[in-house]
Amino acid sequence: MQRSALLATTAVLAAATALPAMAQFQRPEDAIKYRQSAFFVMGQHFGRIGAMANNRAPFDAQAAAQNAEIVQAMSRLPFAGFVDGTDRGGNTNALPRIWAERARFDAAAARMQEDAARLAVAARTGDVAQLRTAFGAAAQSCKACHDNFRRE
Amino acid sequence: MQRSALLATTAVLAAATALPAMAQFQRPEDAIKYRQSAFFVMGQHFGRIGAMANNRAPFDAQAAAQNAEIVQAMSRLPFAGFVDGTDRGGNTNALPRIWAERARFDAAAARMQEDAARLAVAARTGDVAQLRTAFGAAAQSCKACHDNFRRE
Repeated sequence: MQRSALLATTAVLAAATALPAMAQFQRPEDAIKYRQSAFFVMGQHFGRIGAMANNRAPFDAQAAAQNAEIVQAMSRLPFAGFVDGTDRGGNTNALPRIWAERARFDAAAARMQEDAARLAVAARTGDVAQLRTAFGAAAQSCKACHDNFRRE
Repeated sequence: MQRSALLATTAVLAAATALPAMAQFQRPEDAIKYRQSAFFVMGQHFGRIGAMANNRAPFDAQAAAQNAEIVQAMSRLPFAGFVDGTDRGGNTNALPRIWAERARFDAAAARMQEDAARLAVAARTGDVAQLRTAFGAAAQSCKACHDNFRRE
């Protein structure tokens, strides 16, 4: 049940991000804060998996699976916040390139979401080696997007 | 499938919050930012339902259901961030009363989570009157907790 549950929820969250983004936020600052908030929550859970994958924390299969499930669910949310006109205002590190090269950015976002889905699958196996591989791939996706689209 | 999906995901998120909270955050500021981030994401989706419930936006049954599902999923997350010692530091509006009257705070949190679950059920009916009632109850839960436990 859990796997189909996850897929269904992911589908719901994916559909939600397809709502007209412009209408979703009252102010540009809200869109910026929204995407930053969603990334922060995701990053906290992703970091807990990383600690296990990199032997900085003891491996706990159940905790890894729970964290990965939250990472996957959260991965669907932040991109709705990259509304036109929100490359400035608020306190954003988003580069204007996101909007100038939108198709490339969207592809990078989709890759991260796929990696998050694979991470959740790997975490559910309870096998730390599989978790480690999937974590590494997802971390690479994060880094590639930050390198290309975020002011460091 | 959607309903069981939701319940399963909610169960996963609930279990996640039962992990030892102290071990989850590297720094007190992270715990504060985590709970604020989760509340902000939840609030954005809750606000979109409110706009429909209060006729400030046209009623869209599918959007209402999607937003309510995200509200319910998010409602499970922020309370892990109320770690001991995080009544100060960072930029928190949390009152020390949260820790002094922990059982009362936890009960208020549980009430909000129940209201969020009811809101998701109501939203899935597609009936704006039911959505309005459930939204009103959930908004009351939010307000009661803010009145008691948050510096305004």
